[in-house]
Amino acid sequence: MHRYRSHTCAALRQTDVGANVRLSGWVHRVRDHGGVLFIDLRDHYGLTQVVVDPDSPAFKAAEAVRGEWVIRIDGRVKARTAETVNKTMPTGEIELYAQEIEVLSAAKELPLPIFGEPDYPEDVRLKYRFLDLRRETLHRNIVKRTQIVADMRNRMNAEGFAEYTTPILTASSPEGARDFLVPSRIHPGTFFALPQAPQQYKQLLMVAGFDRYFQIAPCFRDEDPRADRLPGEFYQLDMEMSFVEQEDVWNTMAPVITGVFEKFADGKPVTKDWPRIPYDVAIRKYGSDKPDLRNPIEMQAVTEHFAGSGFKVFANMIASNPKVEVWAIPAKTGGSRAFCDRMNAWAQSTGQPGLGYIFWRAEGETVEGSGPLAKNIGPERTEALRVQLGLEAGDACFFVAGDPAKFYKFAGEARTRAGEELNLVDRDRFELCWIVDFPFYEWSEEEKKVDFAHNPFSMPQGGLEALETQDPLTIKAYQYDAVCNGFEIASGSIRNQSPELMVKAFELVGLSKQDVEDRFGGMYRAFQYGAPPHGGCAFGIDRVVMLLVGAKNLREISLFPMNQQAQDLLMNAPSEAAPTQLRELALRVVPQPKKD
Amino acid sequence: MHRYRSHTCAALRQTDVGANVRLSGWVHRVRDHGGVLFIDLRDHYGLTQVVVDPDSPAFKAAEAVRGEWVIRIDGRVKARTAETVNKTMPTGEIELYAQEIEVLSAAKELPLPIFGEPDYPEDVRLKYRFLDLRRETLHRNIVKRTQIVADMRNRMNAEGFAEYTTPILTASSPEGARDFLVPSRIHPGTFFALPQAPQQYKQLLMVAGFDRYFQIAPCFRDEDPRADRLPGEFYQLDMEMSFVEQEDVWNTMAPVITGVFEKFADGKPVTKDWPRIPYDVAIRKYGSDKPDLRNPIEMQAVTEHFAGSGFKVFANMIASNPKVEVWAIPAKTGGSRAFCDRMNAWAQSTGQPGLGYIFWRAEGETVEGSGPLAKNIGPERTEALRVQLGLEAGDACFFVAGDPAKFYKFAGEARTRAGEELNLVDRDRFELCWIVDFPFYEWSEEEKKVDFAHNPFSMPQGGLEALETQDPLTIKAYQYDAVCNGFEIASGSIRNQSPELMVKAFELVGLSKQDVEDRFGGMYRAFQYGAPPHGGCAFGIDRVVMLLVGAKNLREISLFPMNQQAQDLLMNAPSEAAPTQLRELALRVVPQPKKD
Repeated sequence: MHRYRSHTCAALRQTDVGANVRLSGWVHRVRDHGGVLFIDLRDHYGLTQVVVDPDSPAFKAAEAVRGEWVIRIDGRVKARTAETVNKTMPTGEIELYAQEIEVLSAAKELPLPIFGEPDYPEDVRLKYRFLDLRRETLHRNIVKRTQIVADMRNRMNAEGFAEYTTPILTASSPEGARDFLVPSRIHPGTFFALPQAPQQYKQLLMVAGFDRYFQIAPCFRDEDPRADRLPGEFYQLDMEMSFVEQEDVWNTMAPVITGVFEKFADGKPVTKDWPRIPYDVAIRKYGSDKPDLRNPIEMQAVTEHFAGSGFKVFANMIASNPKVEVWAIPAKTGGSRAFCDRMNAWAQSTGQPGLGYIFWRAEGETVEGSGPLAKNIGPERTEALRVQLGLEAGDACFFVAGDPAKFYKFAGEARTRAGEELNLVDRDRFELCWIVDFPFYEWSEEEKKVDFAHNPFSMPQGGLEALETQDPLTIKAYQYDAVCNGFEIASGSIRNQSPELMVKAFELVGLSKQDVEDRFGGMYRAFQYGAPPHGGCAFGIDRVVMLLVGAKNLREISLFPMNQQAQDLLMNAPSEAAPTQLRELALRVVPQPKKD
Repeated sequence: MHRYRSHTCAALRQTDVGANVRLSGWVHRVRDHGGVLFIDLRDHYGLTQVVVDPDSPAFKAAEAVRGEWVIRIDGRVKARTAETVNKTMPTGEIELYAQEIEVLSAAKELPLPIFGEPDYPEDVRLKYRFLDLRRETLHRNIVKRTQIVADMRNRMNAEGFAEYTTPILTASSPEGARDFLVPSRIHPGTFFALPQAPQQYKQLLMVAGFDRYFQIAPCFRDEDPRADRLPGEFYQLDMEMSFVEQEDVWNTMAPVITGVFEKFADGKPVTKDWPRIPYDVAIRKYGSDKPDLRNPIEMQAVTEHFAGSGFKVFANMIASNPKVEVWAIPAKTGGSRAFCDRMNAWAQSTGQPGLGYIFWRAEGETVEGSGPLAKNIGPERTEALRVQLGLEAGDACFFVAGDPAKFYKFAGEARTRAGEELNLVDRDRFELCWIVDFPFYEWSEEEKKVDFAHNPFSMPQGGLEALETQDPLTIKAYQYDAVCNGFEIASGSIRNQSPELMVKAFELVGLSKQDVEDRFGGMYRAFQYGAPPHGGCAFGIDRVVMLLVGAKNLREISLFPMNQQAQDLLMNAPSEAAPTQLRELALRVVPQPKKD
């Protein structure tokens, strides 16, 4: 017999009754039932109930074991009696009568319990991560994560993609977030950087004549910790393909991701045919470029109903500024003064002056609009609004007026809040879509100049002509996001592979050809030697896993995460370097003023 | 029709004749055959021959294109005439008659040719890696590498292993090679380190209750560049499993690796049943713990044949020191004075005093030993040697005497040289084996103390009793290597998961319990809370790929390698950091004396 086990703790069934077997695992629980000891033995695969009779030769050993000890048990499989069968456990039809117990590893008193979801301080949990990981939920989440990633790989391989690994020690990239630096010992005073994404390498790979690249890619950004982003490293399903237009990327990746979601969604519906929503439309309908499409509310512009109306606040705004619009946020089933007042109070709590509304109720045969706005604009306009918005008695509508560029975010939040408060959002589904036609440039208030809105390497729609003739802020890019349930899960674009276009595109944000050569020399050089049209995208793996396992916190789906202060408490990192290390790297640490 | 292609450049066949198709790719070659232009169009998948007649509307465009331009071609597929069919190309039965050509990207004059295997300076090739990668061999090697790695993953998944990714920003590890450091911005003056291997994390994963871990793991060592190791990063197929003995690891991994080799060996034989050779035996038989088993020569100790013999040099050595042995290196078919003298001269060229030998020739009915040694020890001892070694007329044998600990490496080199010179080595096969029972400790001449021979986390054979009672230098570990054709391709062990044993094992190399806690706190702490017996190994992916594609240089199987001075010439890394970056990290670069 094998030194440690003939079966895993999830393997024994009715058909094994009578067999002499050997199990190894952790003592999950010990119970004393009138002198008979019951041990739940746990391993990676499952649980088996072990019975130790007082006359078993293993009894003395069994009395000594405690929770989380690792033991080996030899015994005989017996059927459980009908009333003790546990149908919720795969091994619930049998129990193991112990004949011999060997302690493989004892455990000290535990600094945190393994059972359930204890409300323990984060720092204790991270320092003893190897114990925290034994908890059922976390164990299951991590296993599911490995399965999701393996499934992504299989689907990409099936689509003819190959996984190429790109360097992790690379050059600092002057755009984007802050890089982690790695001092070079052989060239003292110089530094490598960890990649924020394999963007340039995957494009170089296309220029090098490869096609259909993907990578489960580690990415690194030295950002200040945020609730939704762990400090340090994260993973992307990164992909790129040659001789494609953006539709090719969408048609390739939507089925892959839908397939992954369907496999791991536990039966919840998943969008098969992803809508492609232009950025401008998303902003107008949902007030967000990451719309939660589970929320059925779609906003509409209703400016003309307020122009010249008796509601002077809106009417005057509209008259004085051609940019001003009024957007309606229709709220089915929200037609009560109490709900409308709650929404108004919420708006005020976020710093808004308030949230105008109308709600409709049945008055005999007719439907009548109520609320101060309805009074001010009169019954005809109120009815015209109701008809345009398709609302009925029992429904409400909220109104936001001003320059949409300034109010759309708030309008989107009001849409979200109304949908959630009214339970219009079907939580048990995954709604996926592409947001497309992102603006190429944006106005930087900070720097008072035009800047790239997203990826500077994206292809501007309209090409050189657009760059030379159009108002930059009206130029769209072949740039797109994938969104699921209100979260951005991917971003991508068709790339600008023309050196002339690249120089022109950077010129418009105030950078010279020399700047382009200095900052993106490798790629700029490459584009001059035969570069194929190419494009791709990158899906955020952590976010996809969080959605699929229903986790709220990144630490619930990460194996060995850092804490919010960017420290690894388990391995004690970061820590001071040895003086010899610093000497070899030609570095000196500048003493810092003490913080209180 | 698709904007860029209806088919890839490898897709068209006889059955497509008559079809109007669209291809895109690189101009591999343009030839002018009496006014008709022939363009070989290349993409990731293959080549297609394009014909442009002088009366084609595409002719003017075709005249302008040059090598490595990226173009789109619309045309009609025609069958080649019988005499122009090219059976070596998948598309060799057809050619494409161009009707329209669009230039997608022109190319400047190339700094290095794409054809063949030009002897171009390494630095030019690395600076223009995107061009070098277009060469057929390198492209094929890289694609094969992706296939090998994908196959490893599939086989590990099929064996019930899951891929867990472990942190890349972690703690500096005080043992082993030099770490790359990553300064922390949030905790100025402290550093993360890049992992030399996920050793501690994978062990913690086992302690956390997971099982059957693997990872295609990026590893980092800041070593001085060596011919057989690229600076910076490399990849391992890393694996670990719980509740196992070393046989379980061997029985799991040998079939996986044999399967990978068989799939990519182009029909060459691969060892199915890996021999398990104890380290001591490997040293005595092959003079190496990385024996090339394709070489049939096995050395033997023949000390007794020289003890008290007429060959006084050996006899006196044997008499004066009980450690002295004489090893024989039998060399079938090496039985000529010329060959033996060549071997002797080679030995002297490596700094040895010489290499004693006997060679045998047929003298009528009998076989007679020749050479000075044979004369000195006389015909009886010579014949006894021949019989023990199983040699015949036409064979030779070389002899090395002294303390085996000091001469075994040289003896191993002589074995290799004899096998290669005599063409005894069958190059067209993959011979795999496990080298097992490595010594746990070794004597460090440098530090004049006992030190760990390999992995300090391995389990010593004999456990606590061995540590307490045995001469440390005689203790073996449950530690093993996998070897292929003379190269170490993997290393692994059963781990020491007992805190007491760990403290004792470190004590013997002069480290206290406090040292263990300080240096390996995470793991030492973990072992006190129920640690399962576990073990594993890690295969070097670069080496496996090199063996399978027959590459001599790591740059032939790496996508974007650094040069031997640890620089990425394509991306220009490492480079100076911006003053703001250094300020944020609280670092100052210490000016270095100028090197000439």
